[in-house]
Amino acid sequence: MTTLLSRKKCGILGATGSVGQQFILLLANHPFLHLHAIGASERSAGKRYKDCVQWKQSSPIPGEHEGLVLRACKAENFKDCDLVFSGLNSEIAYELEMDFVKAEIPVFSNAKSYRMNPLVPLVVPLVNPAHLGLINFQREKLGLKKGFLVCNSNCAVVGVVVPLAALQAKFGPIVQCEVFTEQAVSGAGYPGVSSMDLVDNVIPFISGEEEKLEVEAQKILGSLNGSATEIDAQTDLRIGATCTRVGVTYGHIAYVSLRFKNHPGPSVRQVEQAMMEYQPELLKFGVSFSGPAIKVFMEEDRPQPRLDRNISNGYTVSVGRIRDGGKDGHFDLRFAALSHNTVIGAAGSSILNSEIAIIKGLI
Amino acid sequence: MTTLLSRKKCGILGATGSVGQQFILLLANHPFLHLHAIGASERSAGKRYKDCVQWKQSSPIPGEHEGLVLRACKAENFKDCDLVFSGLNSEIAYELEMDFVKAEIPVFSNAKSYRMNPLVPLVVPLVNPAHLGLINFQREKLGLKKGFLVCNSNCAVVGVVVPLAALQAKFGPIVQCEVFTEQAVSGAGYPGVSSMDLVDNVIPFISGEEEKLEVEAQKILGSLNGSATEIDAQTDLRIGATCTRVGVTYGHIAYVSLRFKNHPGPSVRQVEQAMMEYQPELLKFGVSFSGPAIKVFMEEDRPQPRLDRNISNGYTVSVGRIRDGGKDGHFDLRFAALSHNTVIGAAGSSILNSEIAIIKGLI
Amino acid sequence: MTTLLSRKKCGILGATGSVGQQFILLLANHPFLHLHAIGASERSAGKRYKDCVQWKQSSPIPGEHEGLVLRACKAENFKDCDLVFSGLNSEIAYELEMDFVKAEIPVFSNAKSYRMNPLVPLVVPLVNPAHLGLINFQREKLGLKKGFLVCNSNCAVVGVVVPLAALQAKFGPIVQCEVFTEQAVSGAGYPGVSSMDLVDNVIPFISGEEEKLEVEAQKILGSLNGSATEIDAQTDLRIGATCTRVGVTYGHIAYVSLRFKNHPGPSVRQVEQAMMEYQPELLKFGVSFSGPAIKVFMEEDRPQPRLDRNISNGYTVSVGRIRDGGKDGHFDLRFAALSHNTVIGAAGSSILNSEIAIIKGLI
Amino acid sequence: MTTLLSRKKCGILGATGSVGQQFILLLANHPFLHLHAIGASERSAGKRYKDCVQWKQSSPIPGEHEGLVLRACKAENFKDCDLVFSGLNSEIAYELEMDFVKAEIPVFSNAKSYRMNPLVPLVVPLVNPAHLGLINFQREKLGLKKGFLVCNSNCAVVGVVVPLAALQAKFGPIVQCEVFTEQAVSGAGYPGVSSMDLVDNVIPFISGEEEKLEVEAQKILGSLNGSATEIDAQTDLRIGATCTRVGVTYGHIAYVSLRFKNHPGPSVRQVEQAMMEYQPELLKFGVSFSGPAIKVFMEEDRPQPRLDRNISNGYTVSVGRIRDGGKDGHFDLRFAALSHNTVIGAAGSSILNSEIAIIKGLI
Repeated sequence: MTTLLSRKKCGILGATGSVGQQFILLLANHPFLHLHAIGASERSAGKRYKDCVQWKQSSPIPGEHEGLVLRACKAENFKDCDLVFSGLNSEIAYELEMDFVKAEIPVFSNAKSYRMNPLVPLVVPLVNPAHLGLINFQREKLGLKKGFLVCNSNCAVVGVVVPLAALQAKFGPIVQCEVFTEQAVSGAGYPGVSSMDLVDNVIPFISGEEEKLEVEAQKILGSLNGSATEIDAQTDLRIGATCTRVGVTYGHIAYVSLRFKNHPGPSVRQVEQAMMEYQPELLKFGVSFSGPAIKVFMEEDRPQPRLDRNISNGYTVSVGRIRDGGKDGHFDLRFAALSHNTVIGAAGSSILNSEIAIIKGLI
Repeated sequence: MTTLLSRKKCGILGATGSVGQQFILLLANHPFLHLHAIGASERSAGKRYKDCVQWKQSSPIPGEHEGLVLRACKAENFKDCDLVFSGLNSEIAYELEMDFVKAEIPVFSNAKSYRMNPLVPLVVPLVNPAHLGLINFQREKLGLKKGFLVCNSNCAVVGVVVPLAALQAKFGPIVQCEVFTEQAVSGAGYPGVSSMDLVDNVIPFISGEEEKLEVEAQKILGSLNGSATEIDAQTDLRIGATCTRVGVTYGHIAYVSLRFKNHPGPSVRQVEQAMMEYQPELLKFGVSFSGPAIKVFMEEDRPQPRLDRNISNGYTVSVGRIRDGGKDGHFDLRFAALSHNTVIGAAGSSILNSEIAIIKGLI
Repeated sequence: MTTLLSRKKCGILGATGSVGQQFILLLANHPFLHLHAIGASERSAGKRYKDCVQWKQSSPIPGEHEGLVLRACKAENFKDCDLVFSGLNSEIAYELEMDFVKAEIPVFSNAKSYRMNPLVPLVVPLVNPAHLGLINFQREKLGLKKGFLVCNSNCAVVGVVVPLAALQAKFGPIVQCEVFTEQAVSGAGYPGVSSMDLVDNVIPFISGEEEKLEVEAQKILGSLNGSATEIDAQTDLRIGATCTRVGVTYGHIAYVSLRFKNHPGPSVRQVEQAMMEYQPELLKFGVSFSGPAIKVFMEEDRPQPRLDRNISNGYTVSVGRIRDGGKDGHFDLRFAALSHNTVIGAAGSSILNSEIAIIKGLI
Repeated sequence: MTTLLSRKKCGILGATGSVGQQFILLLANHPFLHLHAIGASERSAGKRYKDCVQWKQSSPIPGEHEGLVLRACKAENFKDCDLVFSGLNSEIAYELEMDFVKAEIPVFSNAKSYRMNPLVPLVVPLVNPAHLGLINFQREKLGLKKGFLVCNSNCAVVGVVVPLAALQAKFGPIVQCEVFTEQAVSGAGYPGVSSMDLVDNVIPFISGEEEKLEVEAQKILGSLNGSATEIDAQTDLRIGATCTRVGVTYGHIAYVSLRFKNHPGPSVRQVEQAMMEYQPELLKFGVSFSGPAIKVFMEEDRPQPRLDRNISNGYTVSVGRIRDGGKDGHFDLRFAALSHNTVIGAAGSSILNSEIAIIKGLI
């Protein structure tokens, strides 16, 4: 089915940055997304990609993209693209992304600027592709025909909402979540965190991360209202978060303790089953990723970032250490979830979002 | 006051191991504990310490101890000691420590073997030195005059119970605690954790640690009953724990979310104040450590293991990121606590426990 | 050409160890080597691979191999194999590998036991496949028809001899080499090096490694004599080595300073050219690896282990920092070479050696 | 003797940077250097030290220095100092340090700007304090009475020249040295090297470092000519260097292979003896450091950065792995030397240099 889709020309904004590099990798050999244009600052415009980028990935620059010439990140330079992916920093994303949208170019953004905007779907493709239904209303409000903006979530949120979605689908609402994260340094970009801060050390704080985790999850797990004009956030799900940085290159772990609304909650065995069988709507669309959404580990010391982050090339979320909340405990369940922060936690989510939008005929 | 105490002859069991090495360091230049005898396996008996030990500390072997000759770890070889510290592995500690006690030699143990034994005080010196009052009953039951056994807690527990004790002293009972830890590799001894497991990685599990944290904390925070024959554990304090291993040499961090019994709970400012002013009973005894028990950080990214573990040579617990539980939140408070796992989390606790016992005239 | 070869049944001795795991990975989907049997200790015999192995690779166990049942490592259990790969520890390899050879089963060994044995070819496939010509004489001496033994080199040697071979082919003999290595922890197996030894640290010594590097390189770079009965080692190439361990999972770097026999030596530009154009004999045989043998980096801060070890899936050696020896300098040339220590430095070399032997009709 | 010296008022230029922080630590409780003034950028001037600095040391800011108020780094603001230590970046050091010197304030600099200037002594206090004899000529040339400039060497040079000086003093000239370094990240300042570059990785290159090592060593090991007007560099000592960065916080290791002029060279035993007995001239002056200059390790896996960098609080150079160059080898000797890069490799050297200058009556 996938292969019957007509090819779309894509652009990448912020192509030389960390997220941009991940887009470059993930778009190599894509079945129907063709990387057509790459954007960076004025200073780099006109130069070849491989001459400007400080490439820090463990696979080389795909040969097909090496010679692409950078364009300045202005909407007028990307008119020949069917859509663009944005790996821009949030400082400049706010203005620039809206310029692209208004120029009728669909934008799939990794920046935080518009995530909580009521007109903008915040989509984790393994969870809430239905929120793309908000796009028509967004276009109507902005007076657009083709342009629109879709955000994906903060990288730390993904590992939490995917298992939560699987659980809620089967066992009903979750009312409380205590989340603790150990996050990879690539989440801070490059150069990002100083090596002086992470040799023989951990950093018990990531600026703004805990708030994002708390509010973004509520929006992602919310539902599009009947008139498709608003996302009703799941505000009765209270989340408390503690986010830390550890000396890992890729792969965020989230440790989750949660309480269901309905009691008694499910058994550990039922939870394992529900996670293993989770079939997000996305997998029915024929996107380039065929699952599984969640890989469940029975070994007591998994998932681990170095060993498990690359399952399904980083698109699968790994869950392990599923255990009950203890007798008389407040929480019903605990588990650990690992997600690849620059694939399913960033660029990979954008790409899947764009695939769904294409399949739904929005592009 | 300290200096008026008569000198006591100490022994170390398991002197070549990780905990044993820490004892060797901490007893150098001690005002009234004199290291007199060191024990290891039969194989090493008769050899000089420096010829047998794989010394892995960042300070050299104290000159005064280098030439000490190892004895086999048998009670008969330590009759000339007033007390012994045990850094034995729990497999052999069970039998061996009891041999010493029955030979009328007081034992201060780091092993887990007897921690939950109802006759044995489990003492974190910054929290519950009063539990040493159980010793008389222990002696009575075992038919002993001088011998007794005192345990200190698991290294991960210390960073939790010290701030909890400070809070409960001021604000009344805590009824729920969710604890997440990032623990240093030295906690696993040497060679302990493989470097293959901690380069670009974290391990989301430490065998047995979560259970220990949950039950030991209840005993430590409990109270000696009126007849001094039993510790009434604080069983209405429910603790849920997730313990992980990170690539740090020394210093465990515990991230704690908690709920008080009485509402509304204290403000962040009141909590900071209570922690800063916490004066554990121990500091009144004139032990070799003069405080502070807790150092409170206002910087949002502290405490950090590499920077803060050595405050007061590892005897002080550092607390930071004190924040409230969020509006409508289940938890009243969150904070991060760092403790030096081989000092206040192990050997240092044993030493302070022995000092109190000496000052109280139990030795 | 490759695909015309008939399939061979392979066994792996020591299949659950570090090198064994790498064999398992590399033999997945191999065009003509079919993994037929896997061996481990008596204790594991009869159990399924996935139930016995502590799998520590960043890709999962290939599905096709998961369910293979382990056999005890005895020659009689591997009679149905056309050849075996040995990932055995050298302590047991000495006796066991010879048992297999005498049972007429060709053995490709990673152990050090027989590397310097005059009857045994020590083959780095990118350098000296011609040494396999010694097999006939080996068989004759041992009274064998089908069995034989081939060793591959110590993992640290590979990164040195591949560029040296490229240089000698073009510019004549090298007479002196000073080598310094930074070696990955996987080279010590699992658990191998303690994390206490490599957090915030390097180890300036690897037992036996420097000697191996010095003598193995001379044998590998030597030549088979006219009667194919002996390897004439290149003894006039004097090598001095310093080997260190660093906190890297995979990828050994060797820093080489060298002096040619003939002066003036080649220019940097000529050296770069010679390395890029190096076409080892092996590439003409139609083995599963199609090159390049060497990838030359012009960037001054490359190669780096994390970024470059996986070029050509770990079969290519990366060379960078090519520079001359300085005016009036004793050395003519300096460079840095990175090799994947468990692929081209171990299991991958064995596999290529076996492919050549098959193509040459020795199996 | 030391204590009879009158107290001198010191300033620190660049007090908030990495080197500046080390000065702050080392000057705490100094017997005769009193920290009187600290300088930073205009932006920080007027603020208290502890409110401006991103303190990244593992001991807290000394209480006595916490409240010091920062001054803008202009000579006129430091007229009340007897001398200043400069931890300025080389970009601004060039102009600024000369301003101070011309304002008659003696400057002890860590920057590279003037190291190779023929009028400036480049002094490693454990090696060549006699070069301070050049100061009179420097003053004469610059028309100064009190002001002068002394540099200390690049941090990687120290670990090489100290053992070389010990060897040359005993066994005559060394004519060739091949040096390989593994350098700590603190050498690059803060934030310095990105954690993305050093997790599971090493960097095989440090910009400018190899050249510095080669030329600075020749100057340091040179001698002041008879008229005290020039340093005659030891140009017949040819040094080849390869410098790499590893994931270590503090402590540079240099691996040295060397050749003496006179043959046969000394035995390993003689070399060990010479290193142990090395009594640099400095130790006769009564400076605050009383030695040893070199600590010799007999263990084959030492020195190691984490374990040995703090010997004598970072002022002692540790040497190990002393071994001969092999039969028929070109080199006579190999060894490894570890030095604390921010103590004896930077701020500590400056402080000792100033002490010598004071004792010699130059200040």
